Amino acid sequence: MNSSVEKLALLRSALHQNSIDLYIIPSSDPHLGEYIPDHWQIIKWLTGFTGSAATVIISDTFAGLWTDSRYFIQAEKQLSGSGFEFVKPGLFQRYDFMDFISENVKSGSKIGIDGRIFSLAGFRRMEKRLEGKMVSIDTQCDLISSIWDDRPPLPFSYAFDHPVEFSGKERSVKINEVRELMGKQNADFHLLTSNDDIMWLLNIRGNDLKYSPLLLSFALIGMEQILLFIDEAKIPIKLASEFDKLGIVILPYDEISGILSSVTEGHSVLFNPQSTSVGLFKSISKNSRTVDDISIPARLKSIKNKTEIRNIANTMIRDGVALTKFFHWFNSYHGKEPKTESSLSDKLFELRSQQKDFLGSSFATITAFNENSALPHYTPDGGSGAEIGERGLLLVDSGGQYMGGTTDITRTIPVGIPSAQQKKDFTLILKGHINLALAKFPNGTRGYQLDFIARRAMWGSGLNYAHGTGHGVGYCLNVHEGPQSISPADNKTVIEAGMLTSNEPAIYREGEYGIRIENLIICYEDEETEFGQFLRFDTVSLCYIEKSLIDKSILDQKEIEWLNAYHSEVYDKLSPHLTSEEKTWLKEKTEPL
Amino acid sequence: MNSSVEKLALLRSALHQNSIDLYIIPSSDPHLGEYIPDHWQIIKWLTGFTGSAATVIISDTFAGLWTDSRYFIQAEKQLSGSGFEFVKPGLFQRYDFMDFISENVKSGSKIGIDGRIFSLAGFRRMEKRLEGKMVSIDTQCDLISSIWDDRPPLPFSYAFDHPVEFSGKERSVKINEVRELMGKQNADFHLLTSNDDIMWLLNIRGNDLKYSPLLLSFALIGMEQILLFIDEAKIPIKLASEFDKLGIVILPYDEISGILSSVTEGHSVLFNPQSTSVGLFKSISKNSRTVDDISIPARLKSIKNKTEIRNIANTMIRDGVALTKFFHWFNSYHGKEPKTESSLSDKLFELRSQQKDFLGSSFATITAFNENSALPHYTPDGGSGAEIGERGLLLVDSGGQYMGGTTDITRTIPVGIPSAQQKKDFTLILKGHINLALAKFPNGTRGYQLDFIARRAMWGSGLNYAHGTGHGVGYCLNVHEGPQSISPADNKTVIEAGMLTSNEPAIYREGEYGIRIENLIICYEDEETEFGQFLRFDTVSLCYIEKSLIDKSILDQKEIEWLNAYHSEVYDKLSPHLTSEEKTWLKEKTEPL
Repeated sequence: MNSSVEKLALLRSALHQNSIDLYIIPSSDPHLGEYIPDHWQIIKWLTGFTGSAATVIISDTFAGLWTDSRYFIQAEKQLSGSGFEFVKPGLFQRYDFMDFISENVKSGSKIGIDGRIFSLAGFRRMEKRLEGKMVSIDTQCDLISSIWDDRPPLPFSYAFDHPVEFSGKERSVKINEVRELMGKQNADFHLLTSNDDIMWLLNIRGNDLKYSPLLLSFALIGMEQILLFIDEAKIPIKLASEFDKLGIVILPYDEISGILSSVTEGHSVLFNPQSTSVGLFKSISKNSRTVDDISIPARLKSIKNKTEIRNIANTMIRDGVALTKFFHWFNSYHGKEPKTESSLSDKLFELRSQQKDFLGSSFATITAFNENSALPHYTPDGGSGAEIGERGLLLVDSGGQYMGGTTDITRTIPVGIPSAQQKKDFTLILKGHINLALAKFPNGTRGYQLDFIARRAMWGSGLNYAHGTGHGVGYCLNVHEGPQSISPADNKTVIEAGMLTSNEPAIYREGEYGIRIENLIICYEDEETEFGQFLRFDTVSLCYIEKSLIDKSILDQKEIEWLNAYHSEVYDKLSPHLTSEEKTWLKEKTEPL
Repeated sequence: MNSSVEKLALLRSALHQNSIDLYIIPSSDPHLGEYIPDHWQIIKWLTGFTGSAATVIISDTFAGLWTDSRYFIQAEKQLSGSGFEFVKPGLFQRYDFMDFISENVKSGSKIGIDGRIFSLAGFRRMEKRLEGKMVSIDTQCDLISSIWDDRPPLPFSYAFDHPVEFSGKERSVKINEVRELMGKQNADFHLLTSNDDIMWLLNIRGNDLKYSPLLLSFALIGMEQILLFIDEAKIPIKLASEFDKLGIVILPYDEISGILSSVTEGHSVLFNPQSTSVGLFKSISKNSRTVDDISIPARLKSIKNKTEIRNIANTMIRDGVALTKFFHWFNSYHGKEPKTESSLSDKLFELRSQQKDFLGSSFATITAFNENSALPHYTPDGGSGAEIGERGLLLVDSGGQYMGGTTDITRTIPVGIPSAQQKKDFTLILKGHINLALAKFPNGTRGYQLDFIARRAMWGSGLNYAHGTGHGVGYCLNVHEGPQSISPADNKTVIEAGMLTSNEPAIYREGEYGIRIENLIICYEDEETEFGQFLRFDTVSLCYIEKSLIDKSILDQKEIEWLNAYHSEVYDKLSPHLTSEEKTWLKEKTEPL
């Protein structure tokens, strides 16, 4: 394999041959989701940078990489000597790759992108920024395939059924619902590009990606047929014949572009510009009418049905049992044998693996000690991570994929005796967490209205955290799933009964420690009054919250009552699945405050 | 004067003569602000409807009026027999005039509007809704002038100086600041269409409108000159010569269109599409580049300077003294002589008029008893309003224009002994009010993030109110002034130090009573920590809050402390200006809870 410097030279000569002045490489694949297969990890192959989000720009005289603040330290390290410059914006200065292009592009230049992995929304923003600059953009510019000789193939895994006992709804019913809503939007066709939308619709799952049980696929829903673009070999015969009965036609993955252009001729097509590539968009017939909106499956799957909610409750018990066993094990053996951040992650994975219907982790486990826990998205930088010392805070953020749901939970525990500041910080976070868990609000409330309540106690003490309080969570699908969120950002999605969202306030003290408390909460309908239908949250994650980190004097009566009730529920639901030693230990951990 | 039916017939024949199929009349004037002069009250003249917001649509076979829920009852009454139909949407159904047009307009139709009083933003929305319908829109269609023979002239009042002791900043300094920001937006010209933007910039005021001390005017700011379009006779010689020194050129009000098109040729023009009419927009040269944004004065004037903040503090004392005298008078004389809602409003106006630097009311005083107070924007429907009975709730929402600021304050007081439900409602509102008053939050927080805290206690009891919690307030300008708000709506404006906003949670129980508690709050800089600069509010309105309506058991210790501290401040600041009888009375009203 060549070095980054050699690859850059090869790429530059490809630029010359294709008369491209500026080449842009995003960190995405044709489905524009969060986790992407090795085949599309172009930036990692090219530059050595392993962060999950980045953009690379290459010209004759420049080669640079942009990423977000999570990866600043990592980018500086990994790009050293690569020939690629890490472009770090100033502290309060936004300077993204579009600012760079807009400032540096010359009239008459030609920009090259691979339109298959560039979102239409991003492309439109770029066009707008370059308005009046006399620049052309070639969207069919794949300069990578020809120079990446040991490129990994696309992943292969078999589809498996996600039966109605888990999904709660037959695929035929879901298809009908989607078609009905398509009718309301006057859409003859609905293009699905997000793998998870397709998995949900067809009640199937697979293992193409590391942390989400998905298969790479596209789908075009018509009123009679559904064209499913996927490697045919991935679909077992039994499923294929089920699909056949429902008018689901399996077509080669690569043929999406060609078929899209012929089928859509003269028809209207609904698609989401955020998750549709500009390449695919250009394949839609010019004689068709397009409707830009979030996909219908994305809207429908965000509202969990009764079966899903029941399964989530069971899944949370399994996940809680694994976590409880983990913390009990850590508690019993720490100090007796050396432990690293990685060995803890491995142990937790092993314990989850013993649970029924477990499919895998839902994201890379974050096990972070002291200053490492101050990095919200920490993963050990190769090797086995830091050793767990004698004193400090240990943050464990992890989750699993189960047939009956996806989990995501964070606990922070002390090693040795915590400081007064650590206890105060922890308790302020807990106050925020509890107050969101207790929130009651009318139908029509948006996530941005609820965010404050999780921050209020912290803000009162001059503290804050730089990420949202909650993200939507899939059901045996992506752990980060829209459309809702609970965050300061102006996401107009209304929080509805059936939505599963995280509740994860935090504090990060750089160089010292980080604390985060995360449970998942499901929204349900509470009372209806003359002022409308009111909603509340049910906390579904089950694991004790470390009492030795609580400064009780900061909590009010309602908050203490919530914690005691939660702990009593944790004990009641988990203890039947624990050894008597674990049970005794959990009993003490969940005693009333 | 003709009847509405006769006017409608005249208008229909004008439609025929001009080949117009559908004529749209908005309730606005060329400045697209909240208060409009009689000259532009076309809908009132035509239909008899006196509400402040409406749209009328007329065709050969249809004549209808749309308004918002504030005016539903009034519209039904006032339109009876007028020939105009009141189009009332269903309870949870949106059906605005654009829905009607979109459903009823035929291919090939011609729609007429008077582009001088139709906002560009509204026009663009209409165009979008009618896309693909083969409809033409004539934007120069004034069918009213020729049939309204006794039309009132445009108002006339003299400009007066708003000196630096009140404004805190010389006009020359403001002009420089605006030009500097124009430079940053690459704008050669900045078109101002909102009267209050121009008053602020030039440090002048006038009396063209009833509730805002404004003069009808347009301005075009260039880098060397400012073209001020206004009736020249309104500008006293001394001001005119001051203007002359600063390169402010006075031009006839009507010449804005013609001059706009010649001056802007080949230049860039910054303007706000919300407050610029489509007529004026079409006058901007086609060879100019336009920049759509909120106006620079709108942004600058929302941040009150130190002099303004000092003056607001003094103004609040005067306003609070008038209100205290009013409530003391009501308390002393109620039951002894009959009182109506209107006689109370008159008394309050009289007491405000005795205060130094008072210019007039800042909006129509709402004095509403019992079921009338359940209408958030109640004004007596002609006559003198309801008589104040023996028992119930009295809501008084009023404000004044002073040289040193604009006030807006609501108090609700009991007549006789309040019910337990009234006390519970009042206390929940008070909790919300206090919690917003106590909020602490980091730089960058938007109003929509803070709204929840004012509703939390109410929501917890299944109660709510259908309006925002707070609006921005001008300084000796409009009582409703953007760009900030504290409301569930997704207003992206960040709350900044120096902003003056209302804090007015409420409950409305239809047919029974309404309660609202409103103070104005100014944002200021609190501590700066490693997590950033934090902000808080200072409550500046001064008037006691009725303790006999408080159920103390619902308040927590912090809330009681806030109320006691507020009451102590009210007494200390107001008592030096009261008679000894009033003082004794206020002392009791402000005793600690």
